[in-house]
Formats: sequence, structure tokens, C-alpha cells
Amino acid sequence: MFESLYQTFTESADPTQGKPRLAALRTELAKRGLDGFIVPRTDDYQNEYVPASAERLAWLTGFTGSAGLAIVLKDRAAIFVDGRYTLQVKDQVDTRLFAPQPIADITPAQWLVKNVDKGMKIGCDPWLTTSQTYEAYERALRQAGAELVAVDDNPLDTVWYDRPPEPLGAIRLHPKKFTGTDAKQKLNRIVAALDKGEALVVTNPHNVAWAFNIRGSDVGHTPLPLSRAIISKDGSHLFVDERKLDPKTRDSLAKLAVIENPAQLRQSLSRFGRDGASVRFDAGSAPAALINALKSAGGRAVVGEDPITLMKALKSNAEIAGTRAAHLRDGAAVASFLAWFDEAAPKGRLSEIDAVEALETFRRQTGQLKDVSFPTISGAGPNGAIVHYRVTEKTNRRIGRGLFLLDSGAQYEDGTTDITRTISVGTPTKEMRACYTRVLKGHIAIATATFPKGTSGAQIDAFARQALWQAGLDYDHGTGHGVGSFLSVHEGPQNISKRGSCPLEPGMILSNEPGYYRTGAFGIRIENLVLVEERKIPGAEREMYGFETLTLVPIDTRPIDKSLMSSDEVRWLNAYHQRVRKALSPLVSPATRKWLIKATKPL
Amino acid sequence: MFESLYQTFTESADPTQGKPRLAALRTELAKRGLDGFIVPRTDDYQNEYVPASAERLAWLTGFTGSAGLAIVLKDRAAIFVDGRYTLQVKDQVDTRLFAPQPIADITPAQWLVKNVDKGMKIGCDPWLTTSQTYEAYERALRQAGAELVAVDDNPLDTVWYDRPPEPLGAIRLHPKKFTGTDAKQKLNRIVAALDKGEALVVTNPHNVAWAFNIRGSDVGHTPLPLSRAIISKDGSHLFVDERKLDPKTRDSLAKLAVIENPAQLRQSLSRFGRDGASVRFDAGSAPAALINALKSAGGRAVVGEDPITLMKALKSNAEIAGTRAAHLRDGAAVASFLAWFDEAAPKGRLSEIDAVEALETFRRQTGQLKDVSFPTISGAGPNGAIVHYRVTEKTNRRIGRGLFLLDSGAQYEDGTTDITRTISVGTPTKEMRACYTRVLKGHIAIATATFPKGTSGAQIDAFARQALWQAGLDYDHGTGHGVGSFLSVHEGPQNISKRGSCPLEPGMILSNEPGYYRTGAFGIRIENLVLVEERKIPGAEREMYGFETLTLVPIDTRPIDKSLMSSDEVRWLNAYHQRVRKALSPLVSPATRKWLIKATKPL
Repeated sequence: MFESLYQTFTESADPTQGKPRLAALRTELAKRGLDGFIVPRTDDYQNEYVPASAERLAWLTGFTGSAGLAIVLKDRAAIFVDGRYTLQVKDQVDTRLFAPQPIADITPAQWLVKNVDKGMKIGCDPWLTTSQTYEAYERALRQAGAELVAVDDNPLDTVWYDRPPEPLGAIRLHPKKFTGTDAKQKLNRIVAALDKGEALVVTNPHNVAWAFNIRGSDVGHTPLPLSRAIISKDGSHLFVDERKLDPKTRDSLAKLAVIENPAQLRQSLSRFGRDGASVRFDAGSAPAALINALKSAGGRAVVGEDPITLMKALKSNAEIAGTRAAHLRDGAAVASFLAWFDEAAPKGRLSEIDAVEALETFRRQTGQLKDVSFPTISGAGPNGAIVHYRVTEKTNRRIGRGLFLLDSGAQYEDGTTDITRTISVGTPTKEMRACYTRVLKGHIAIATATFPKGTSGAQIDAFARQALWQAGLDYDHGTGHGVGSFLSVHEGPQNISKRGSCPLEPGMILSNEPGYYRTGAFGIRIENLVLVEERKIPGAEREMYGFETLTLVPIDTRPIDKSLMSSDEVRWLNAYHQRVRKALSPLVSPATRKWLIKATKPL
Repeated sequence: MFESLYQTFTESADPTQGKPRLAALRTELAKRGLDGFIVPRTDDYQNEYVPASAERLAWLTGFTGSAGLAIVLKDRAAIFVDGRYTLQVKDQVDTRLFAPQPIADITPAQWLVKNVDKGMKIGCDPWLTTSQTYEAYERALRQAGAELVAVDDNPLDTVWYDRPPEPLGAIRLHPKKFTGTDAKQKLNRIVAALDKGEALVVTNPHNVAWAFNIRGSDVGHTPLPLSRAIISKDGSHLFVDERKLDPKTRDSLAKLAVIENPAQLRQSLSRFGRDGASVRFDAGSAPAALINALKSAGGRAVVGEDPITLMKALKSNAEIAGTRAAHLRDGAAVASFLAWFDEAAPKGRLSEIDAVEALETFRRQTGQLKDVSFPTISGAGPNGAIVHYRVTEKTNRRIGRGLFLLDSGAQYEDGTTDITRTISVGTPTKEMRACYTRVLKGHIAIATATFPKGTSGAQIDAFARQALWQAGLDYDHGTGHGVGSFLSVHEGPQNISKRGSCPLEPGMILSNEPGYYRTGAFGIRIENLVLVEERKIPGAEREMYGFETLTLVPIDTRPIDKSLMSSDEVRWLNAYHQRVRKALSPLVSPATRKWLIKATKPL
């Protein structure tokens, strides 16, 4: 009945694959005169979701986590993972070959200092490495009397016999009804933001997508085209494989930029370098290979913030209208799922995977789903307490009595969604209710926050934690991340966390997702997307902002302990539910409408 | 009847003094082959309160603000001030000679780039300049094709015919009953905090005072000894003018350190440099003269945080007991003042200066007052809206109906206090009540905050602003600063502000002082000192902290609009007042006791 097209539940990794592959890599390194090699999980765009052709770490080690890095020496190898993956790495990797290293305890650079010998040559692919990281390796190896060698073609690729080809996802123009702004206008604004005589190398493909109003299909969950660009007063250059462009798209783009082969970019930068030009790079995504090409030819690299990142975060009116439409559509689909779930779950036969498949099917029935915006987190009971849980056939759990955490999102052409609901199955315990209510209080504190222009996410992050702190509880993740418009569900520079230094400005979309996790028992997270908007307050002396909640789906009221809530909080929840009921009622089936009325009943 | 011994109300500055003095300085510069000179307000310890011998900026320009800087060229001169002083500078300085520059619009370095010509030599006293600032000048002048020249003796001092001598305030040992820890133990802890083979140059005299358990009397309001030290595994050196030491003090200190003439320090650093040593400096207070001496002799300067700064912030049990005793004593004195004020003020004949004199007198009557911890801010009506107001005979205002803001503090041997009360004279307007209540709500939000270990001041700063933000209001200063123990009333690294990155830890003392300022009408600030303490919460999963309020003085309830307060807030205020009443009753006169009962009546 239900199925998932955009997400799989298998683990392809096998700990036994590591041995022959590691041996093959070492042979290749020896041929090249290298004593070691660094294998990060990143692709050459520093993407969150990477194409299959860039899954080098998984191929070599078996490890499929979203972040990690291996270092291979002649006689030993290590794999570095963060706290999320300390258990998973042991399941997936032969740890006699690759010694797991908690990255909080030892960085790859520190490990290099301790483990390499004088005179060693350690290889590094400068396309997979930002210049900051590259320089950290260089310093570490210099300290150990060894040397970092930038490899021109990756030795792992040489021995990766069945490496999938690089993706050639079609690029489509993203129409003005969704973007609100012509690419021509955007390029002019970008040029105006540069210093005199400066050229910008756009290495973040999300920013290429935004600047040229294009979308691609090279990686999962994010419709970005793997491509780069140079933008300057003298015109723009788009570096993209022409096989991704149909003739019409090519013609349109050719009016905006010279279309060039991706391989040409490095040569263009060498040319810039010889002219002594000043070139701006995005610190977060620019590969050391490009920055080094410019520098070694004599150019000046300004490595910092790509100005597009902030422009992209400030949504146009068309994007805001689009995201509202997407949330209405998505809200109806999620509510339909929840109505079905409330009927089906108490029978005790649903699994986490069933829930993912059903939810995606309800979304697909809108006829407009392009992808899920990330693999759904579907966590029953103790699995809900694993913050970055991803269900597989091996971990799949029956949804029994207790709390079920479901974090999911959709990609529609008019907007990207991201929503978490924690659903009570059976009667919640007193403890679950207390924790759930404190998380909800934090969610409401963000939803109702009012703050002056210039306020950063770091300044308001604790509003979401205050109710938990009063009980000695907390959660170890940020409260909110930026969200794109039919682009990445995680985008900067805005966020709500203790490190969120970017001032929040009208037009930014963020998530509002406080949580609480009781290891081995249950997880709670309540997430809506919000839009920063101006707030008119009588007598105000400052320009004030607040949030419009975009997500329109009932928040489960069954696990609420009303005695812990203030009357203002109850009022907010009731008003939100009234709004949800009114908005979704016309869009759902009679059965869902019946459920909706019950689910949005005032507290 | 009342008088002030520790604060004056005169403005010695006279705009006409600038002309002959500027001419004399220019003649001296010409003699030395300099085309310009930089005159900061700082002394060579980067102190907040500087000795009279360091008031170069005031002598040259007439400007007596606490922060500022002049640059003198042959044909023009500029004076840089921040937003607090844009009006004052016009009153005190001949602006045809010194063009005022708002430092938020143009930094001295930027002004240099614009105003100096190629080949110019601009002098700078490297004793009055931190290395960071020194390097900024160097870069700016290099950009303009000019040169920064470090002067060995200050040319302004050469022409300053009546320059007061450098202070020779007596140094006293600060007894263990107040410090809780022997200097010997402290020095061992400091050495343990250094990297292997590293020496620490202590250039912040507050840190010298803490490390050696000494106090001085060289500058106003802060009992610090102008002195520096070197601390390393090989022993300590204290650089201090021996005339400040009586034989007994000298003998005690000689057991801890080699006592040397202050002029020897630079030579010691040159010696360190020749040995290629690694020396740690405090970025905030180390003069470029010392860092340059080390570097030019071949040493390695580590310019960052002096580890003493954090040690000093974490008060010992003896210091905490001392500060509690100081607050009890100070609370009784301030309450006695307030009782007197409530009787006297409505008659309409009190001035801002009268209030300062009376308050200091009540504090002096404790028999233990060593100084005020800063010049009292006594602002009636619109003067209360000037955040850094300092009353003079010229600005002195009658205290009429409305709000009166009084921010003051005391230095006792056992502790330093800082308290602000906003007092209602006559019937407050509706607007005053609304604003006052919102400030009070912010104060209570900090007083009652609970937060996990690792939380910084930046994370909780907005708790104090939330109630104001809801009305579109805010204040343009931090919520709290660190406070010393019989040392500076402003000490780092802890603070509560959007830039407060230091984690708050048990034993730190901070102020809690949200405010609101209606320009031309009134100012509101409610300030208590608080101590970070552990909080035991049943079921807590984190190590939790909160604040103990140290200050014990009634908060005026007359301007409160109770309808704006939550029941929890009312409960906090009533409990605080009960505590204040119980603590102060035994210490005050019958008349004050009668007032106290009324002032602490539950809401």
C-alpha cells in the first residue's frame, strides 16, 4: 500500500570489504611514493548529501555516517567520527584495520602529529579539502617533520574498480514565479556587493543554484546542480558539464554567463593569478585546489563569506508566498498521515519503516512531491532518543506504547519543509508529560519571541531551553537552522544556537525545534518552520522582529501537562490549532477532517 | 552635614587651555622630527581610573571623559570619542583645534590613513598602547606610505610643565582572612597553569594585586598597586617602586619574589628574548613597549589571556564570606540613606550632589569605607537617562517629582559593592510604571535564572530584555559585569552581555542591571550583585547553576504596575524583601527600621 521512493532502509556497508580495499589502496600509495593518505567523507563541494561517486570513505571502510574521515598509513589506519557515530562505526567497520578515533578527543591533525615519522609524505586530495583544513594538515605534518602532498588524481579512485560515474542530473531553470527575481538582477546585486576589481568564485552549488535560478538533480534530497561559477564586473562564467543542459536551458544560461567545462575553472584561476587579481572564495566550500591554484600563480585570495549566502537567506516575496503554499500542502499531507497513524498505531503492528513509507506516500499523493528534504527520522521509544537516528531494516522497531518521534520534510518546487512531531501512543507516563510540556514551552517561547533588529540567534536560543533548565534538563543540539527555498533544508548563515552570530532579518526561514532525549527510553522534539517578520508594536522605540510560524500541523496535546503551562502559552497553542484547523479543513478527506477537529480542540 | 571625600563635582577642564598646549606640543614634535603624535587617554596599565600624572589627554585638550584619544598633526588635530561623550567633548574642547570624531564612524587608524601624507613620521608612546592597537597603527600608516615611530620618552610629558608626579601610594598586604589563599599557593597555581618553560608577564595591576595578596592606593576607586610582575617556574619578580613599601611589607613580599625597580622589566624581557624564551602577555593590558622589547631581542610572545584573570574571578570561600559581610554593611548604609531620602526628597530641596554626599556619608558612618568603587551616578529626571552621567556643579539638578536614578558602590576591605536603585519621588506616571516594571521583570529573570554548566553570559543576557522587547523597548548596555573583591568594580572575564563568551562558574560575582532610558525624560536601572552558585534540582541530568543575590536593599515598589507581573515574579520580590528586612533590621536605627518595614511590605 505504502512505499518510499526517496529513502532506503538497507545498510550496504560490510566490515569485511575493508581488508582487500585497504590493501589495494596501500599498493597504489606505494607506487606513487606516498606514505599515507587522507580520505574524508566530503565531496569536492563540501556537500551534506554527496553523490555515489564521492562515497570514498564508505567504499574503503564500510562506514556510511554523514561525517567522518580516515587516515591510512603503511602500518596503521584510523577512522575519525563524532559522538553520533561511535556505536555505528563499530558495526560497520573492521576496527582492527581502522582504529576508531572520537574526533572530540583527537583531531586528524593531532593524530598526524603523533603517528607520522620524519620524512613521510602524506597525500591529500585538495579538491575534497577546504583551505583551512588543508593548512591545518600542513602545519601538523611540518611539526612532525613530514610533508603534505596534494595529489592531482585521487589514488583511491584509481583502485575503486566499480566507482559509479559522476552524476549528470538534468538542470532546469527555476521559474520567476518561484524565485521572484531574475537571475540577471541577482548577478548585478552580487557584483555590487564585491569590492572594486574583485571576482567572486562561487563554490557552493546552492549559491550557484540561487544566483542563476537553476535547480539540478545530482544528489539526493537537495535539488542542487554540481557546478561552480565566477562572477565579476567583467561578466559571469558558469562551470558545468554541458550534458546536464538541454538546448533551451543552455540558451537561457548563455545569456547570463559564459558556459565552460568544469575542468577550465582551475586554469581560469591560474590566469587570474598571473594578472595579480583579487578573488573572493567561500571559506566553507572552496577546495584548497582552487585557492592554491590562484595563490601559486600570484593572485590574492580573500577567503571568507560568499555574499550570496546572505542574499539567498533573505527570501523574496515570491519565495515567501511559495513556502506558505508548500506548508499548506505539506500540512494537509502530514495531517492525513497523522489521522491514519492514530487509527493504525494503537493496533500495535506498525513499524518505524511503515511510518516512513506511509508518510512519504501521503506526501506523494499531493502530486507535487519532488523528494524528501532529508531521510525521515522515525524513532519509536528508545530510538527516539538517538538524535540523528536513521531507521534501517536492522534497527526497525515496532511502534508500541510510549512516544514516537517523527522528523521529516519535503521538497516541493515552491518550498522546502521540515517538521517534527512527537506522537503519544497509549497513555504517556507522568515523566513523559512533564518533559514533553517543557519542550513545548520552549517551542512556544521561540514562536512568540519579540526582538529588536540586530539580534542574533545566539541571543534567543536560551528562550527555548529555559523551561528545561528549570528542571535540570537540556538538549545537545541547536534550536534552529536556516532553511532554503526548494534548496537545502540546512542553510546558513542564520541559525538559532549558542553559536548563531548572524543577526536575524525579515525574510529568513528557520526551524524552531527544541527537544529532550532520555537515553534508552524516549525522545521528544517539536519542530515548526518559522519566518522572521517585522512586528509593529504601539510605542515601540526599536525596529522589532518576531516569527510567523509556517508549519501547519496539530501538535499532539495528549502528552501535555497543562498545569505546567502559563495562560499565555495555552492561548498560543489554542490559537495555533485554530489556525491549523481552518487552513487544513478544506484540503483533507472527511475522515482526516474529523481527526483534525479532535486534534485541534482547545486545551 | 554631609560631604563627599571620594568624589568631586568640579570640571577642571577649560577649552581655552588647548591652544597654547597644542602649540607647545607641536614645537616639541618638530624638534624631534615627528610629523604627528597619538595621545590616548590610557595610562601604561590600560587602567579604568588613571593617576593624575597620566591625564595627558585632559591636559592637552580639556576633555575629561573616561575614554578618548587625540591625534595631533602639524596642521590639524582630531579627538576621538564614543557615543557617551559627543556632547561633553563640545563643552570641554576647543573643537576648532581638535575636530571631534565619533569613534563608531571612524577609528583612529582609519583617520590616519586618510589624513597623513607619504613619508610622514607619526609618534606613538608604546607604553600607553597595547600591541594590537600598535599594530593597527603600523598597518594604517604603512598603507598611507607613512611610518609609526615608538617614542622612548613621551614628548607631551616634556612640555607638560606642571605634570603631577607619579603616585607612590602605600602598598599593604591583604590579609588571608579576606583572601582565603596564601600568595605562595596562588603563585604555585599560576605556574602550574603555564606551558612548560613559559614565563608570564603580569601587566594588569589587578592581577598583581590578586597574585601577591597586596592592595595599593595609586588611583582612585580601585585599591590596586601600579606594578607588574614576572612569574615562572624559576621564581617570581615583582616590579614596584620601593618607596611604596614599608619594611615589613617589603620583607613579606621578598619571600615571594625578587623585588625590582619597574624600569628593570624591559631589560629583563630583552634578556628573556636573547635566551629565545616563550613569554605570555595579557592582550588587554600589556604595553607594546614590553612585547616589542621581547620580540626584538628574539623571544616568542604569546599574547592572549592572563590565566590569573579567571582565577581571580573565581572567588574563594573567604572572599565570598567577605562580600556577604560587605553587602550586609553596605545594605544597612544604603537603606539608611533611602529612609532619609524618602523623608527629605518630597520637600523638593535636594540636589543630585546632595544625594551623593549624603549617601557617601551614610557609608562612611560604617567606619569601614575605604573608597567609593566609582563616582556615583546621581541622575534626576532627564539626567537619569544619560547612562554614564556624572554630576558636576554645572549639571547639578534639583530632584523633583519623577524618577531618580542612583548608581553607587563602596570599597570595603572585605568586598566591593555596586548597587543601583531608581526611586520614585511623588506619583509616577503610567508610562514610568510600565517601563519600571518591565526593567524589574528583566532583573528578576536573571535573579531566578537556572542554567547548565558551560552556559555563557551571552546565552542568558536576553532573559533580562525579554519583557522590554515585548513592548518594543531595549537598553544599549550589557546586563552585567564581573566584580572584584576589594578590587575593581569592573572585572573580567565574566559578564552578561551579548558578547559574554566566558562560561559562568560558581564563585563568580556579577552585576544584574537591566535598565531603560527615555531620553529627555527619565532613566531606570535596577542593579544587584549576584554570585554564581550550584543549584541542586531533583531529577536534574546536568550540573546546574543559578545566582544568589548579594545586594540587600529594598527595591522601590511604588513605581510597580503589579498587573504586568506574574505570580512567580511577585513571589520572588516578596521573598527578597523579606530577606532584606530580616537581614537589615538589626543593623539600622529605629527610624530606618520603620521605613524598612514599609519599604519591604509584600506586594
